[in-house]
Amino acid sequence: MVREELRRLLEGVRDARVSPGEALRRLAAPPVGDLGWARVDHQRGLRCGVPEVIYCEGKEPREVARIAREILRHGEGLLATRAGVVHARALRRVAPRATYHRRARLVALARPARGARPVGRVLVVGAGTSDLPVVEEVLYTARWLGARSEVLHDVGVAGLHRLLAHRDALAAARVVVAVAGKEGALPSVVGGLVSCPVVAVPTSVGYGASLGGLAALLSMLNTCAAGVTVVNIDNGFGAGVAAARINALAGPRPS
Amino acid sequence: MVREELRRLLEGVRDARVSPGEALRRLAAPPVGDLGWARVDHQRGLRCGVPEVIYCEGKEPREVARIAREILRHGEGLLATRAGVVHARALRRVAPRATYHRRARLVALARPARGARPVGRVLVVGAGTSDLPVVEEVLYTARWLGARSEVLHDVGVAGLHRLLAHRDALAAARVVVAVAGKEGALPSVVGGLVSCPVVAVPTSVGYGASLGGLAALLSMLNTCAAGVTVVNIDNGFGAGVAAARINALAGPRPS
Amino acid sequence: MVREELRRLLEGVRDARVSPGEALRRLAAPPVGDLGWARVDHQRGLRCGVPEVIYCEGKEPREVARIAREILRHGEGLLATRAGVVHARALRRVAPRATYHRRARLVALARPARGARPVGRVLVVGAGTSDLPVVEEVLYTARWLGARSEVLHDVGVAGLHRLLAHRDALAAARVVVAVAGKEGALPSVVGGLVSCPVVAVPTSVGYGASLGGLAALLSMLNTCAAGVTVVNIDNGFGAGVAAARINALAGPRPS
Amino acid sequence: MVREELRRLLEGVRDARVSPGEALRRLAAPPVGDLGWARVDHQRGLRCGVPEVIYCEGKEPREVARIAREILRHGEGLLATRAGVVHARALRRVAPRATYHRRARLVALARPARGARPVGRVLVVGAGTSDLPVVEEVLYTARWLGARSEVLHDVGVAGLHRLLAHRDALAAARVVVAVAGKEGALPSVVGGLVSCPVVAVPTSVGYGASLGGLAALLSMLNTCAAGVTVVNIDNGFGAGVAAARINALAGPRPS
Amino acid sequence: MVREELRRLLEGVRDARVSPGEALRRLAAPPVGDLGWARVDHQRGLRCGVPEVIYCEGKEPREVARIAREILRHGEGLLATRAGVVHARALRRVAPRATYHRRARLVALARPARGARPVGRVLVVGAGTSDLPVVEEVLYTARWLGARSEVLHDVGVAGLHRLLAHRDALAAARVVVAVAGKEGALPSVVGGLVSCPVVAVPTSVGYGASLGGLAALLSMLNTCAAGVTVVNIDNGFGAGVAAARINALAGPRPS
Amino acid sequence: MVREELRRLLEGVRDARVSPGEALRRLAAPPVGDLGWARVDHQRGLRCGVPEVIYCEGKEPREVARIAREILRHGEGLLATRAGVVHARALRRVAPRATYHRRARLVALARPARGARPVGRVLVVGAGTSDLPVVEEVLYTARWLGARSEVLHDVGVAGLHRLLAHRDALAAARVVVAVAGKEGALPSVVGGLVSCPVVAVPTSVGYGASLGGLAALLSMLNTCAAGVTVVNIDNGFGAGVAAARINALAGPRPS
Amino acid sequence: MVREELRRLLEGVRDARVSPGEALRRLAAPPVGDLGWARVDHQRGLRCGVPEVIYCEGKEPREVARIAREILRHGEGLLATRAGVVHARALRRVAPRATYHRRARLVALARPARGARPVGRVLVVGAGTSDLPVVEEVLYTARWLGARSEVLHDVGVAGLHRLLAHRDALAAARVVVAVAGKEGALPSVVGGLVSCPVVAVPTSVGYGASLGGLAALLSMLNTCAAGVTVVNIDNGFGAGVAAARINALAGPRPS
Amino acid sequence: MVREELRRLLEGVRDARVSPGEALRRLAAPPVGDLGWARVDHQRGLRCGVPEVIYCEGKEPREVARIAREILRHGEGLLATRAGVVHARALRRVAPRATYHRRARLVALARPARGARPVGRVLVVGAGTSDLPVVEEVLYTARWLGARSEVLHDVGVAGLHRLLAHRDALAAARVVVAVAGKEGALPSVVGGLVSCPVVAVPTSVGYGASLGGLAALLSMLNTCAAGVTVVNIDNGFGAGVAAARINALAGPRPS
Repeated sequence: MVREELRRLLEGVRDARVSPGEALRRLAAPPVGDLGWARVDHQRGLRCGVPEVIYCEGKEPREVARIAREILRHGEGLLATRAGVVHARALRRVAPRATYHRRARLVALARPARGARPVGRVLVVGAGTSDLPVVEEVLYTARWLGARSEVLHDVGVAGLHRLLAHRDALAAARVVVAVAGKEGALPSVVGGLVSCPVVAVPTSVGYGASLGGLAALLSMLNTCAAGVTVVNIDNGFGAGVAAARINALAGPRPS
Repeated sequence: MVREELRRLLEGVRDARVSPGEALRRLAAPPVGDLGWARVDHQRGLRCGVPEVIYCEGKEPREVARIAREILRHGEGLLATRAGVVHARALRRVAPRATYHRRARLVALARPARGARPVGRVLVVGAGTSDLPVVEEVLYTARWLGARSEVLHDVGVAGLHRLLAHRDALAAARVVVAVAGKEGALPSVVGGLVSCPVVAVPTSVGYGASLGGLAALLSMLNTCAAGVTVVNIDNGFGAGVAAARINALAGPRPS
Repeated sequence: MVREELRRLLEGVRDARVSPGEALRRLAAPPVGDLGWARVDHQRGLRCGVPEVIYCEGKEPREVARIAREILRHGEGLLATRAGVVHARALRRVAPRATYHRRARLVALARPARGARPVGRVLVVGAGTSDLPVVEEVLYTARWLGARSEVLHDVGVAGLHRLLAHRDALAAARVVVAVAGKEGALPSVVGGLVSCPVVAVPTSVGYGASLGGLAALLSMLNTCAAGVTVVNIDNGFGAGVAAARINALAGPRPS
Repeated sequence: MVREELRRLLEGVRDARVSPGEALRRLAAPPVGDLGWARVDHQRGLRCGVPEVIYCEGKEPREVARIAREILRHGEGLLATRAGVVHARALRRVAPRATYHRRARLVALARPARGARPVGRVLVVGAGTSDLPVVEEVLYTARWLGARSEVLHDVGVAGLHRLLAHRDALAAARVVVAVAGKEGALPSVVGGLVSCPVVAVPTSVGYGASLGGLAALLSMLNTCAAGVTVVNIDNGFGAGVAAARINALAGPRPS
Repeated sequence: MVREELRRLLEGVRDARVSPGEALRRLAAPPVGDLGWARVDHQRGLRCGVPEVIYCEGKEPREVARIAREILRHGEGLLATRAGVVHARALRRVAPRATYHRRARLVALARPARGARPVGRVLVVGAGTSDLPVVEEVLYTARWLGARSEVLHDVGVAGLHRLLAHRDALAAARVVVAVAGKEGALPSVVGGLVSCPVVAVPTSVGYGASLGGLAALLSMLNTCAAGVTVVNIDNGFGAGVAAARINALAGPRPS
Repeated sequence: MVREELRRLLEGVRDARVSPGEALRRLAAPPVGDLGWARVDHQRGLRCGVPEVIYCEGKEPREVARIAREILRHGEGLLATRAGVVHARALRRVAPRATYHRRARLVALARPARGARPVGRVLVVGAGTSDLPVVEEVLYTARWLGARSEVLHDVGVAGLHRLLAHRDALAAARVVVAVAGKEGALPSVVGGLVSCPVVAVPTSVGYGASLGGLAALLSMLNTCAAGVTVVNIDNGFGAGVAAARINALAGPRPS
Repeated sequence: MVREELRRLLEGVRDARVSPGEALRRLAAPPVGDLGWARVDHQRGLRCGVPEVIYCEGKEPREVARIAREILRHGEGLLATRAGVVHARALRRVAPRATYHRRARLVALARPARGARPVGRVLVVGAGTSDLPVVEEVLYTARWLGARSEVLHDVGVAGLHRLLAHRDALAAARVVVAVAGKEGALPSVVGGLVSCPVVAVPTSVGYGASLGGLAALLSMLNTCAAGVTVVNIDNGFGAGVAAARINALAGPRPS
Repeated sequence: MVREELRRLLEGVRDARVSPGEALRRLAAPPVGDLGWARVDHQRGLRCGVPEVIYCEGKEPREVARIAREILRHGEGLLATRAGVVHARALRRVAPRATYHRRARLVALARPARGARPVGRVLVVGAGTSDLPVVEEVLYTARWLGARSEVLHDVGVAGLHRLLAHRDALAAARVVVAVAGKEGALPSVVGGLVSCPVVAVPTSVGYGASLGGLAALLSMLNTCAAGVTVVNIDNGFGAGVAAARINALAGPRPS
């Protein structure tokens, strides 16, 4: 349960749309769902604004499904990352209305109480077509968290005109997420073009001295553009959460 | 000149507080101040919200002073980072009213047109007393950029009660900057307590396998707390800029 | 043969429960079992308190079985680590009563002479569900060595309340083993909460800049909590032995 | 205040050796000593068994002295690590009876209430004469924490007879701390000779591919001797605390 | 003696401007000048187009002077790199007409027979003012080798307009040398703007995760702009030689 | 479209070989081919001399084919690198006349307008038979770009006579590309034998401390032969482009 | 052809056992066997004492067979390393009498002219059973080169008595090759026990911080035992050649 | 005392040149000289052929002198490595006839009983003049151990003719030590020219991506020349010992 949902629940009681008994049931839920081998943190949404999310890598499909059921029982929607096809299948059995974003390896089910339409403007820019999976992981994570989010594909620095052609989109963003592998130069160039926060995501795209994305990561950490911050290699989910949090801060943007 | 100053200049012309000639002079300034060996980017404030800042490390004091004079000639205030005592002395000759934050190694002169009082709430939390220089670099940078900013010193994770005693301050922040050396665990713990954006700054405090701060950096990049973003080791300036940008996005915060 | 077993053997002779001939046979065993290509160290139990243990990785099942037979011939129980299904099957043929802990990849057969009930209190705390295999390797190793051992699953620092809810268990432990991947912050937080020895185990859980567990390892080595010691990445066996040795030192704990 | 001291204080009240008022004063002390830029954790002794210790590296002598005064005001003795001559001089002004172990760079003042004589047996073994500073940091830290502690100098593996000549000392130890630089092989050899816990300390002694002690650190983490645990490079203090904690667990050792 | 000089010598004999005896003296010089502890490679100019150059770092001034005298005796001009003030002074005693480029740490004396005016067009672009020493090392090396060479200072990617304003200079170059520290993005952007060869030089400018220039080096090796080649960190000399060699290949450039 | 093709098109209009309408169609093509998820840079050939090339690794065959079709529609020939058999098959369906160089993993279709015969002389030297795939990637890339290119196989430094036997070929080259794995010494030896530019390509051939080619890469970056430049590990394509660009600069070489 | 074989050939001519024609044929063989894509170095035996050996990794079986045929045509015996089963099968077709040492991945065919019985004494000591493949690669390589060679298996330092029991074998060796993974301590201990040359071979046995054998490699390079030299990780072949070369130097050893 | 000296002592007794009492005194010396903080290994010479040698780095001059006195009291000559001027001065006070090789940082006093003239032939080849200190450390160490040793300076691979001119010296050597920094290619080239053992020594000469000598070290470990072995960076002493041991094995070399 995130803060917003709690507020709505209390307003529901005030307005008699929700019975005190129902509210009690939801509020009396234990803060931790203990599955024996896992401990689902039901307070996380309230505390951090992002409910517990399932990281599927290395978990067996039935474990993932078991955790999902526990989360869904508390009515917070569902997000599962690094989900392979087998994970997706197991989750769809538990949450038939969930969507599987195959390239992004995300399974998402909108949070029921979130209602409302997306706010703000997150712009995700990707350097190359090989960065697509990470770009989409950012995109769908941010959307799942309620942020209006758009993408600018394949605008790497070796053909600057592709990026410069979209200066309006850059200027309109509240937060830009720049995704790049290889030499990871895109966030530095973007950081020199905008005044909003920029989150950089290195990807493992590349070979040899790319060292699995370390070259791009180091490049981004050393950016000459002030105010760019960085997440782990291929961590589209983390960047999506950071962007959504920043985006959520903003009131209506003065034009 | 940042966007806000440009708006004010134009309003000044409209309101006849500024003569068109004076406005012309300021707007007609070339976008780059060419010193032969340096090229001061006078558009940066307008473009990125942060005017050109002087990085003193490895520059000679007279070079630093020369660049400062060029910046001041365009009336944007002044910030110089990694400034040793000799740099500070040279800068004070050019900008006598500037302040030297010795521990933070910053020389700062408030931007004249910025006026107004600080907005939002940036909270800088530091893990140990050895992290003070970086903590203060974040603090004074954020303040220079107009952010209301406070500090929580010496709240490392080996004594959690020191941090947990300040949950209200954490909850009141629009953005938290968590600074830590050694194992760099503070941002992960902070990230689990708040719902606002968190910027993590690794410091080079430590020895041996700390590898000059790499251990803390890697730790922060791998944080289990979603949505934490990271800057370079000891990069208090970068974190201050990022925090100020995020903080500036926010309208009045609902209580 | 560990020291305790030797003592019991000699007492058996004194009490006429064991014939001198039988004792002779066992004591006259050569200190090394030479298989041509392997040299089983039969003195290790006596010398180090831990009998020779089989590391299965990279060995063929029949080799593992051959070594197991040599160990069993000297009556010391059996422990085989990093055992895949094929290793387990081969070992079960040699030692039908042995247990295969699949997730922990351990094959264990209790040492016959060990008798007695487990002593002390080893507490294994794990940061996340992905750390389960290593957590269980610690657990079953420590139990095999005679230590009373319990587990606290999924108490990573991003949801501190999950850990803090178990302060009594932490206070009751003689030694805590803290297992974590990603940023590896758990041992630092645990180290700030207890006064008993803490052994930290980094896991290879993570991706990108986790560098196969190096990030967690470095984090733990640089912990700000004094007195935490560390073992190799994913080395649940080593941590289990260390914990059991420490645990074995303790007499009854004053409450 | 460590647990033992608390017990003694309460017994003093019971036995009327301490007035309730005096006990009140000491117990009512705030858990944190807030110096503005530093937050001394007065609960640490009670919580972790080791009072707050001052890490001098990078602090100015007057800062170190200021923290020391705050610690001494709560009567817990004093330990300052990585203390240069100037730190020692400043500390001696605050605590004239403190001892400066120059090679170990420690300033130590025994905890007044600790009374009693040292218990157990910690054995510190050092590989070479260049490792002396770290060896002595372990030694004096363990002694300050109440552990009976001895040293075996210069017993590196290139002359095994030097170590093997002291098997009795090894057998008599409750915990062995093995300190080595270069290839760091000593803990592996020691680990094969004893059944008590072994703590390994890599030192930065070496050059070239020693990588500032990383070679020794990696060697120790990969030891083939089960149950050896490791601390950071040159971290004699951490090893001393770990050893003292383990040593404190033990009741009288059966011979 | 480079190939061009050899040709000129032979033409001199043909045209009776040089006596056969004098030519004999120069051609009969041994291919190696043996100083006992050094072996000056007098064939290198002929073989590789670049005469032996003195690397001063770690050599004593009198050694440097001794080698210089040997080189000058064969009349090839002189270039000494990484020359400190003391080296420069010693070299000026041997070659009074040599120039000391202090920032570039080069001592240069034009090769007498080179005559002619510089050819081609080498353009050196530098990302920031801190990169000046390396930029100038490239510049003066290329000029010493006969290449017409110009510089574009301080055109880092955080202010793209500074670089884009000089597209004509880029288009006119036969080879571009791009020098950058920190994230090293400049060569990638330059590589996307030109069709001539681009040589990238990473510098050690930066801190923390810049790892002494490794971040910039890795960035450049992974550039998404095809056809960029890279030299060692801070290796302005190597880049200058490479650029001069490439530049020398070109005949008159079609406009 | 590369510059040369543009010139030819305009000459075609002048000479009435191409109708203005046809020229219009080709020149009016948008600079970017937007496929939604990819943005083909149709200006690249004109700007950089090398048309957009498809990097197949990690792309699905149908994506590769889709991009190829977009490129072919603009008539620039086709080059696809890191193409597996399935990519090759998909590309052959789109471009039936393309050649698949299986060992080099290249799919190439000559640019129709390129006409003319190859110019200059690129010499590719390979250290061992295991380096063949990279050697051939250099070769066919350079040829596709119009460079006359030859190979010298298996001339590693452990048998110098194999290389020294081909000094004439070395002397005749305008640019040498030296490909080597393991210790990567070949470019240093070659660099000492020639006066033309040398491009070094490290390969991932080797094991253990070769670190996937890093050893060879570092070796080449530290070469004692001045003027050698380096590309990424296994980046035969990049070296081929660099060599072709350098080669293209040269007018007829004086003998 | 190695030097010894050349001597024997010439003696054969002198003694009329070999016809001049036959000797001519063998001596007139070109120094390089050019296969187009490979260049077999037929002089290597004569020059270096070790004929060209085939490294199979990454080569196709038919390529390996093709090279083998070329080598065999010059009558030097055959050694192929890193040979998988398919390589072995292809080689056996060319050299039916060759032996395949499967664990060592070697295919060996004794050199016909070598005759004589093995000389000297190479002792290969291995730390653990997992090191067997490398131990055997050393053994069979040394034997193929004519060295009398024995093995001591599984004598790692965690059970020193296993090694110390074989001091006579150590004392009798002319050169010891010590093979170890994990912490790689064995060569340091061996180096302290013998006065003959010691060659150390790190293996990739281990996990986590073993970093694929780097930990063992660094350990060995930093050995405190003077005079130990090291080869690449898992390079049993290189160690075998080095040992055989050293062994071959020795005349009869004084007892 | 090395084995040879022991033999000579016993022969002296047999021949009545040494009194039994004197022999008794020397043989009865304890195997370890215990200085409290240091343990001089008097058996090392006998066991390993090389007496204990003093490593001065990080030791105080008076400590070094104290150890030297203990060694000299046993009459084994003296070698001290990494000796600065102050160490040399302190040692000369204890051993006035010792020589200080300043560049090599060695203090050496010939072993009195060694008598005889140097044997065999060690050839030390150095790549550049900056490698001189390490080259001389190898040279004087080998000579101190009784090996006839010569040097070939400044024969790096960028000018191959310098090395190839000395093929006779290479052919005459029993062991070659190849010393090189930067790319470390020299041992690979030497290894392809000789049939005797080759020991490679990487030096820290270089900058940037030389990583303090790691590049040269990795290069040498990956050499394509079979049978080259390697020591630590700048470890001239270790290479000298290894070379002397190998050299000592050889009987008279057949020509």
